[in-house]
Amino acid sequence: MNKYKAGVVGFSGYSGAELVRLLGSHPNVEPVLLEHRQDPGGRPAPVNHPQLRRAPSSPDSVGDEGLAVVFLATPPEVSMDLAPGLLDAGAKVIDLSGAFRLRDAATYARWYKQEHTAPQLLGEAVYGLPEFCRQRIRGARLISNPGCYPTAANLAIQPLIASGVADRSAGIICDAKSGVSGAGRKASLKTSFCEVTDNFSAYSVLDHRHVAEVLMVSGLDEPEFTFTAHLLPIDRGILETIYVRTRNVKSAEQLLDIYLRQYQTEKFVRLYQPGTLPDLAAVNRTNFCDIGFKFDPATGRAVIVSVIDNLVKGAAGQAIQNMNLILGCEETAGLL
Amino acid sequence: MNKYKAGVVGFSGYSGAELVRLLGSHPNVEPVLLEHRQDPGGRPAPVNHPQLRRAPSSPDSVGDEGLAVVFLATPPEVSMDLAPGLLDAGAKVIDLSGAFRLRDAATYARWYKQEHTAPQLLGEAVYGLPEFCRQRIRGARLISNPGCYPTAANLAIQPLIASGVADRSAGIICDAKSGVSGAGRKASLKTSFCEVTDNFSAYSVLDHRHVAEVLMVSGLDEPEFTFTAHLLPIDRGILETIYVRTRNVKSAEQLLDIYLRQYQTEKFVRLYQPGTLPDLAAVNRTNFCDIGFKFDPATGRAVIVSVIDNLVKGAAGQAIQNMNLILGCEETAGLL
Amino acid sequence: MNKYKAGVVGFSGYSGAELVRLLGSHPNVEPVLLEHRQDPGGRPAPVNHPQLRRAPSSPDSVGDEGLAVVFLATPPEVSMDLAPGLLDAGAKVIDLSGAFRLRDAATYARWYKQEHTAPQLLGEAVYGLPEFCRQRIRGARLISNPGCYPTAANLAIQPLIASGVADRSAGIICDAKSGVSGAGRKASLKTSFCEVTDNFSAYSVLDHRHVAEVLMVSGLDEPEFTFTAHLLPIDRGILETIYVRTRNVKSAEQLLDIYLRQYQTEKFVRLYQPGTLPDLAAVNRTNFCDIGFKFDPATGRAVIVSVIDNLVKGAAGQAIQNMNLILGCEETAGLL
Amino acid sequence: MNKYKAGVVGFSGYSGAELVRLLGSHPNVEPVLLEHRQDPGGRPAPVNHPQLRRAPSSPDSVGDEGLAVVFLATPPEVSMDLAPGLLDAGAKVIDLSGAFRLRDAATYARWYKQEHTAPQLLGEAVYGLPEFCRQRIRGARLISNPGCYPTAANLAIQPLIASGVADRSAGIICDAKSGVSGAGRKASLKTSFCEVTDNFSAYSVLDHRHVAEVLMVSGLDEPEFTFTAHLLPIDRGILETIYVRTRNVKSAEQLLDIYLRQYQTEKFVRLYQPGTLPDLAAVNRTNFCDIGFKFDPATGRAVIVSVIDNLVKGAAGQAIQNMNLILGCEETAGLL
Repeated sequence: MNKYKAGVVGFSGYSGAELVRLLGSHPNVEPVLLEHRQDPGGRPAPVNHPQLRRAPSSPDSVGDEGLAVVFLATPPEVSMDLAPGLLDAGAKVIDLSGAFRLRDAATYARWYKQEHTAPQLLGEAVYGLPEFCRQRIRGARLISNPGCYPTAANLAIQPLIASGVADRSAGIICDAKSGVSGAGRKASLKTSFCEVTDNFSAYSVLDHRHVAEVLMVSGLDEPEFTFTAHLLPIDRGILETIYVRTRNVKSAEQLLDIYLRQYQTEKFVRLYQPGTLPDLAAVNRTNFCDIGFKFDPATGRAVIVSVIDNLVKGAAGQAIQNMNLILGCEETAGLL
Repeated sequence: MNKYKAGVVGFSGYSGAELVRLLGSHPNVEPVLLEHRQDPGGRPAPVNHPQLRRAPSSPDSVGDEGLAVVFLATPPEVSMDLAPGLLDAGAKVIDLSGAFRLRDAATYARWYKQEHTAPQLLGEAVYGLPEFCRQRIRGARLISNPGCYPTAANLAIQPLIASGVADRSAGIICDAKSGVSGAGRKASLKTSFCEVTDNFSAYSVLDHRHVAEVLMVSGLDEPEFTFTAHLLPIDRGILETIYVRTRNVKSAEQLLDIYLRQYQTEKFVRLYQPGTLPDLAAVNRTNFCDIGFKFDPATGRAVIVSVIDNLVKGAAGQAIQNMNLILGCEETAGLL
Repeated sequence: MNKYKAGVVGFSGYSGAELVRLLGSHPNVEPVLLEHRQDPGGRPAPVNHPQLRRAPSSPDSVGDEGLAVVFLATPPEVSMDLAPGLLDAGAKVIDLSGAFRLRDAATYARWYKQEHTAPQLLGEAVYGLPEFCRQRIRGARLISNPGCYPTAANLAIQPLIASGVADRSAGIICDAKSGVSGAGRKASLKTSFCEVTDNFSAYSVLDHRHVAEVLMVSGLDEPEFTFTAHLLPIDRGILETIYVRTRNVKSAEQLLDIYLRQYQTEKFVRLYQPGTLPDLAAVNRTNFCDIGFKFDPATGRAVIVSVIDNLVKGAAGQAIQNMNLILGCEETAGLL
Repeated sequence: MNKYKAGVVGFSGYSGAELVRLLGSHPNVEPVLLEHRQDPGGRPAPVNHPQLRRAPSSPDSVGDEGLAVVFLATPPEVSMDLAPGLLDAGAKVIDLSGAFRLRDAATYARWYKQEHTAPQLLGEAVYGLPEFCRQRIRGARLISNPGCYPTAANLAIQPLIASGVADRSAGIICDAKSGVSGAGRKASLKTSFCEVTDNFSAYSVLDHRHVAEVLMVSGLDEPEFTFTAHLLPIDRGILETIYVRTRNVKSAEQLLDIYLRQYQTEKFVRLYQPGTLPDLAAVNRTNFCDIGFKFDPATGRAVIVSVIDNLVKGAAGQAIQNMNLILGCEETAGLL
């Protein structure tokens, strides 16, 4: 069987390299590197092993290459620049930047602090969170792959909002911690080894741009959702500790049931026995989002822990999950 | 001038070793090692350098040694066992375990899940948080040195409780992250290198024994305070992200003023401009507690970041601060 | 097609868990867990996902289970205890401990400082370094899987010994550095997080038991080979810096040719252009051994860098490579 | 007593910051910050604590400030640019770059691959390794502070060269490993967190510029000394494993005697019992160089381990040791 070809722009960044790595073992798809700017740090090639892949092509060659889909693992400016042409050339586009996640240009400008240069695409872009948007994803031309923080947050919060047990007026707090690869692959003093190792810090308190995606998916109003990001001295992984006041929940088992109703058959969301919590190691290099919680029946307080690998379920893995839906492959293909 | 002698039991643990290190440069006090059980891992001694210190003595020799004060850097069982005899022998005792922090044996039994074996001392033990208990510390025979998590939490929360701006009914949430040395120096799979590195996890959610100290100092009721501990893949340092709903606070400057009124002249509490947050590196190997916050005037939400070095302000440094008060030394002696 | 069944004893250790993980994606083989002693730290199981595997069996059930091969990821004492019975029951055995690597009981006793309790098997055990013993491996009943350090060392040194260009009289020096997982999964103060992080140390200088394997494979005399092990503050990976004086080598290209003649078609040994050196990241979670070198034609000095993942090519991966040879599978099955 | 004033150019780099930190507790000297280029990342200043220090001055103000000594913690280009003017203004200069370490402009050009722009100073610059050049340091105007790698190497090797027991013809091999702070504080992909963590690599094999300093001090010819640098995934610390063939050494004790004769009374070189080796933790944040070794009497092989903190004995601490000698202070002032 012929394999689909999937272009990857930004293949030398952390998300792009993860895409290439994962696609390398996909049964139905093969990656094609698309050069957009210079690879900042290629690794030496062995002399006695066949070249792993041919030289990169240009994004302009989408038609000639017969690419079914193109992944943009690029900054939002680059994604807004490339997406229109790629769509015109007939490719489906899965964008890993934040360029097409929000619903209108004004909201984008507010959170990203720059003008949107391809606003005509915002209407048709489909938010690529399969657990909640699977049908729309299947028919989409342009997918906006969710941000890493919102993926872990929305999967943990949404069942509680939808079932009505979350007391929105009490506020939902998400205390998030991420590994350094979430900041991308570029030289920066802030992410240099000696500044990060043995250290830990909070950043973007109350104004992180990923908040907008949680509000959009959950329907929460801005004052109802408090989000703090922190930088962990590790390479990859996100753990979010989420504080929710519940109403009408009598027991931990009842809370677990609410999650099970949502995720019983989901392949990439795993639930734990109440009181049992996942750690980052549980999801390292996997496309799983693992969710556990501790519940206090006396007060209705729930402390929920949601973990993902930011480069997999938080980026490249979820992008491939979306691609599988678009192309009609098994949703788990290349991801287990 | 003759130096006071200060005994250290548990000198080979992380807190005990930090005590010995800090006392080594104290102008008025010299450390005396007191052997209680075998040193689990002494380092090799150089052959051409004078022995750094003489061989350890026994805790029984307190009188003969003329020890003014004895630090117990030991588990609570050992502290309960040793404290009565040391006090009888005329020494002041500063206990770094949790044995004497709570007010009565029943509360101790609930949180520590063991019987208290020296309950007769609970009445006279003084909680050693100098910023709030300085006068009582000066006259104490027995100091219960505060826990690491409660030190960072109480210093951040107490000014908001005392001034009445914290909305207790909305609940106060403390999301705490600690380095591994807080778990003590002993072989354990849970704190072995390969289990901790590249990982991050939550533990003791809603039932950490340190909660009791925050309730005791703040006067908060248990349902009003939510605490989660996490294990950072670093050696030392605690960062707590604290979420408070405020009432009657109009601006970040007003909130800063509340903190300044409490801490303006405190030597070991440093405050930051609103919106500016300390990281762990700011307090590494110091006795400072650094506090910063971000405030949202539209909703009254305050996100406060409080950081300490768990082995210094969270253990050995605060113990020396307490010793300085007891012995009448400069409060900062040996600590700057 | 029915899959072969492969038993894994010691599945909760680092090498054993890696075996189970790798076998999980092997096209021709499926893992069967064999319980020997209690799993020291199982992870919580998700409630909404099918059990990944059935409960562990006993090693006594080898016949009933129809196991084609059994991996022993156990200490040498356990391997010596289990191997005879497993062989009698008709299974092939691949032992990852050092129990069967040396040729006679006296040599074993010298380096391992314990008596060999199954010396009758030493004669038939085949040393499982496929690049040099492929034919004998194919017909073996009992494979002694090589040590991690000797794998990286022998692959780098052997071509220079065999071709006669290494000046043995000048001595060959191997300065080796390993991640902590090489020490196995057990609670120990030496491998606890706070002792290892931010630290680096040499150990077993001039008397590491792995030296015996290098002498056995290379034919070097003991005074001709100097080996130092070091502990890196990382989870996994071995990098060895090897110093060799060469004779009759005129250029770096000539040296590369010697390596190419040996490894041109080897699937798991990759060579680099002279002056280009691999780092640990190049082989992380792969079964490759990457070899690069810098050569000084004026003096004949060669500095060779050889890297492997100690849990893959240094343990579980090489064990599967050996299994593939024994079972007649593709040598790379489950390993690319 | 009035304190000497010591200027620090490059105070925001890692070595410069360590200088300021150490001088902060020096009994006879106080630091003065000298601004040369913009501080790349100052930390936020607490609002309720006295400013730690006044605003930086310009290096041009050396005379007005009455600076007794100026430290240049700058790249060699900057040091060559600033040193002549500072000396003309009457200050002593201690340069932490490599600009003035080698004896002539041609040697400098070969190893540093750039022209020397202040060659007139090379004749008078004194190499600041106190254990071997103490008298000349006392009278110097311009000190070239030794490199980090050569400090650990020369202190370990020189006693064996000087006593004649090192077999130079057999070659001396130094396998060196350093923390990342040795690369300086600047944004670079090579030293970014995700590239360094969980990784380990060799670099500058056979052509590191620090080799020139070892040759200069030891008198070894270039082919007699082989040096490899490696990058450890830690912040600070250097460990060198040094391989020497000895002649006429009968026992480990005899080798220890050779070291003791050299270092018996040295305050900053500590020796260990034969077979006992220091690790990085032994010297972390100290000005010590710790030396241990393992000796094989049968073959005369010695494996020596030499450790320093690259920012202290390898940079700022040794610079202060040199300053103490120049100013006539106690050699250990501010360093114990």
